This record gives sequence, structure tokens and C-alpha cells, in this order.
Amino acid sequence: MSELYKIVVDTKGADKGPAVIIGGVKTALDMHKSLSVLLSGDTEVIRAECERLGVDTSRVEIVEAPEEVTNYDSPAAALFEKPNSSLVIGMTALRDREDLCGFVGAGNTGALIAGSMRFLAGRVRVRPALAAVLPAEAGGFTCLVDTGATVDCDAGTLHHFARLGTDFMREMYGIESPRVGLLSNGAEETKGNKTVKEAHAKIKADGSLNFIGNVEGNKALSGACDVLVCDGFAGNQVLKVTEGTARRMLTDIVKYAKRTGSEEAMKLFGYLMQTYDIASLGGGIILGAVKPVVKAHGACDEKAIVSTLSMVLNMAQSKRIYDENHAE
Amino acid sequence: MSELYKIVVDTKGADKGPAVIIGGVKTALDMHKSLSVLLSGDTEVIRAECERLGVDTSRVEIVEAPEEVTNYDSPAAALFEKPNSSLVIGMTALRDREDLCGFVGAGNTGALIAGSMRFLAGRVRVRPALAAVLPAEAGGFTCLVDTGATVDCDAGTLHHFARLGTDFMREMYGIESPRVGLLSNGAEETKGNKTVKEAHAKIKADGSLNFIGNVEGNKALSGACDVLVCDGFAGNQVLKVTEGTARRMLTDIVKYAKRTGSEEAMKLFGYLMQTYDIASLGGGIILGAVKPVVKAHGACDEKAIVSTLSMVLNMAQSKRIYDENHAE
Repeated sequence: MSELYKIVVDTKGADKGPAVIIGGVKTALDMHKSLSVLLSGDTEVIRAECERLGVDTSRVEIVEAPEEVTNYDSPAAALFEKPNSSLVIGMTALRDREDLCGFVGAGNTGALIAGSMRFLAGRVRVRPALAAVLPAEAGGFTCLVDTGATVDCDAGTLHHFARLGTDFMREMYGIESPRVGLLSNGAEETKGNKTVKEAHAKIKADGSLNFIGNVEGNKALSGACDVLVCDGFAGNQVLKVTEGTARRMLTDIVKYAKRTGSEEAMKLFGYLMQTYDIASLGGGIILGAVKPVVKAHGACDEKAIVSTLSMVLNMAQSKRIYDENHAE
Repeated sequence: MSELYKIVVDTKGADKGPAVIIGGVKTALDMHKSLSVLLSGDTEVIRAECERLGVDTSRVEIVEAPEEVTNYDSPAAALFEKPNSSLVIGMTALRDREDLCGFVGAGNTGALIAGSMRFLAGRVRVRPALAAVLPAEAGGFTCLVDTGATVDCDAGTLHHFARLGTDFMREMYGIESPRVGLLSNGAEETKGNKTVKEAHAKIKADGSLNFIGNVEGNKALSGACDVLVCDGFAGNQVLKVTEGTARRMLTDIVKYAKRTGSEEAMKLFGYLMQTYDIASLGGGIILGAVKPVVKAHGACDEKAIVSTLSMVLNMAQSKRIYDENHAE
């Protein structure tokens, strides 16, 4: 039998409740025979839902967690005030157990980030970053870092994000020397706000990074770089404006298809959805944690849970291969 | 005969040279019988090009300007070092002559902004803003301010942009009480970087503005607001990421059409181009100047010149109507 990778799934905190999460888990378990899960939440609810959906429970472990971190909770406070929440219990298990290799959550993003920093921080303390890995126009993927975890960044933080993104793309995507771009309002070195100009100098001076210079918004996902560095405010715009523009165009295509009755237009829609359905493309990845932690995007339907679990599984497998190849 | 609106056109500074500009002028003159132009540049070059293209010279005036402001010039310095440039001579004419009602340029954006502030500033000195007016998903238009003129903004500057955008949408688009949104990384009042949070409070407290709160990137052009306020760095991302995403999807549609031989897909492409060909949608509008000044977008082909001239003509007409209705 092939090796199993066990991933913690927080069944609470999603807008649409645990049924959607467990539905996604079932599909992911059916898809990936090397996946198993630790479901954190209300044991009775989880059991009932697994039975109803016919989940293969031989690859499911349940851990009881009666409390829930909601979107109304203050992220940092929630970790202390709700020690029996599915988030805290799941993260604690991930920290303490070697057989657990990652975490998927759909709840309060801030609490997920704060939890990662509290329970899963590496030896060096760092500002957290929430990365998004998006399909690039030229093929492959671009890691956008940060997309919203740290909205007020100084130049040192941006430099640090360049390193986090580089490590991530090397370990998870096997790119030996990831090309780093810095998001700016012009390609020239002199373009940018004060912080970006300072960061440009710092990143350029760092010999461990493969810096290609400034990248403009219209080239953000062109494939010009493997890692695109920006503060959480600007990165959030890149992610959401991409999502909003794509969704708007897809909506226009569907309207056109309905109005004209064009079957070809609907086929084209299906084709474009494979690339541009950003919300289902996986999730936000917390960089700087010792094990992969991923936040399911947006409204979080079953599809998002499936793709997030596939993503963490993939990351866990890649990380193992990388670590084995680089063992001292 | 209907009234003529005379617009200054800088024939220099475009990457592709004066022929493209004058080609666009010809098409615009053919389209708009109420348009006339003052062309600033090399008289001989302009005359020859007008003759070659068969331009209706009864609505063309030429003013000799031997120097050129290039993209290599420092914006502020260029105004002093090149007094005989087409930009300075054109702007000076616009300032001094009542019959001139606007300006179109395709050259150095910074110099155009600096020139507007030097020659066409209102009584109150303000930080300049470069706005973009883009078609909103719900219909109508959204004025994005700023898109790159001022990349380092404090909260007061953002508040000021809200006022500039409001005045513009009221005067040019006849919206009595334009809805103002503030770009942020979340809809809640608590979201944003430090400056955005401060600006939120300032804009909210200003009773002269119709503030609807924070707007996220995926709703930037939804039509939720008439004026979207942001610093020039973030606004540049919104503009360029929208442009880049749209261009990428349009390219994918063309590739699909070619691969499958689908005529329907090509028709759909043509349909979407009307909305999403951002580069041809007009230009960047300098707010805070006493007369409309517009920078043609991007690579600046003839189409961009035509749509920029149409835009300034429209603005001049709207402004006249507004001023007549609001005369004391």
C-alpha cells in the first residue's frame, strides 16, 4: 500500500457550515488514495455527515472540538479565549504529531495566520505572509506574496517576503532558482512608492535571490517571475482585481451565450473556467509556518475544499521529496 | 453652423511618432463636426502629414514648437529646460486663450501632470491626480482616482482625491451626488492599511461627500461607486491588473477560436472587445486642472487618439452645460 498523508481539516468556521467541508473531504478522499484526514469539530455532527455522504471512514480520524472561532472573533484573542475550538485543537495536533502534514481551514483568516505563527512558527520569528499561487499566462505558476496578511510593510518585510516566496517555490515546485519580481507602478528601477524603492535596493543586494526587477500590474501573472513580492494591501488588489475581472468577463460570456443561443460560447466558457475560476483554484497559503497551512478561498464551496486539500497533499509530497534530496 | 470646440493636441512625445497622432486627429475630425484642433509641433511635419492623409485643414490650426519632451526628461525640469517644446507651447496656449478647451498628449506622463499643475492649476493648490474613467459592470462609469500621479499619499491626500473625483463626476457626467468608495482589502471599516483607515474616517466625516465605505478589488468596477479613491500605487494596480487580465482572456479566446475554427468564438471576441479593450478606452485624466487634460493610454495607437479626443470633446461640452446651469 502506498504511503498515506494525513491532513488536518477544520470543519468549523465556514460560512456554509460543516456539510460543505465534509462534502469536499469525501470527494478529495475518493480522488486521492494517498490522502487521509483528521477532522476537527463536533464528533456527532461529523459522524452523521460522513454516514449520510458515505465517506470512506477508514481514512478519517475525528478529534472532538466543541468551540468555534468565527469571523467576529479577534484573531489573536480567539486563540486564548477558545482553547477548545476546532482551529486550536487542530493546530495543536498538527504541531505535536509527526504523522500530520498540513492544515486546511475555511474560517477566520486572521485567526488561521495567528495560529500558524503561534503553533507552527519556525526557529526564526517572521512576519507572516498569505501567498496565492496562480496559473501564469506563460504556463507554470506565480506565487503572489503577500495577499493580505501584512498590509503595512516596510522595505525589510518586503525583502523577507522575497525570501519566503523563493523558499516556497523551490521546495514545493522544484524551481531551483525562482525569479523574483517586485510589484511596482512602472518597470524602471526609479518607479514605485518610497517603500517599494527601498525594497528594490534591498532585494537587489541580496545575492541569494534571483531578482529580475520591477513588474507592473499588467504583467503580474504573465509568467515573467515565479515570485511576485508586494505588501498585503497591493497584493490583495492584484488577487481580487484579477478575480473580479475574470468573473465579470465569464458572466458576460454566459449572458452572450444565453442571448444568442450559441453552444460554442458555452463551450468556450467551460474552457476558460479551467484557468479563470480563481475562487476554486485552491487557497491562500501561509508562508513562514513549518508545515503547510492553507485557507480555502472566498465563499468556500465543496470544489474549493477539494482543490485546497489537493494542494496541501501536493505540497506535503513535494516537501518530503525536497527534504529527502536535501537531507544532510 | 454648430459651435466648434478647439482642443490642443501635442503631436510629439508618442513612441510611434507624429503620424499616428495626426492619423487619429483626422479620424476624430471626420467623426465629430464640432471638433477643431490646435496641433503643437513641427509645422512642416504636421503640414506634410495632414496633406498626405487628406485632413480637413479648415478645422486645424498649427503652432510651431521645435523642442520635444521625451520619456527620458525629468518631468519638472523639462518644463523649464524646454520652453519651446510642443508640451509647454501647447499648455501655455491653453492657459492664455479662451477659445481652447482641452489638451490631449501621448508623451511623458509626469511632464503632462507637472505642466497641468504649473499652467492650469486652480486657485487652490492641490496634489495632482491622474484619473481613469472605466465602464462599470452595472452600467455607467467608475472614476478611479488616483492611478499613478501621486504614489505616496497620506490620508488628507486621499480625502482630497475623493473631492476631486466627486467634482469631476458631477461636472462631466451630471451625477448630482456621486457615490464615493475607498479601495481597501476588506469591506469592513476596520480593514485597510494605516493610511486607508485614517482616510476612511476623514472621508466619512466630510458631509459634502456621498461616502459608501470601503470597496474591495473584486468590486472595483462593479458599479458599486461612481468614484473609487486610492493612492496612485494601488490605483495603478487596479487599472493595470484589469487591463492585463482582460487582455489575457481575450488572447485565450482568439487562440481558442483559431484552434477550433469557431466563428462564434471570434464574434464573441469582437463583442467583448467593446468593453474590455482597456487600452483604447480613452486616457488618463488629470484632475485638479482648470481645463480637461488627457493622457492617451499605453502604446497610443490611432484608436487611442480618437477615443481620447472624443473624451475631451465630451468633457468640454459637458463642462459648458454644467457651467451654464450653475452660473450665479
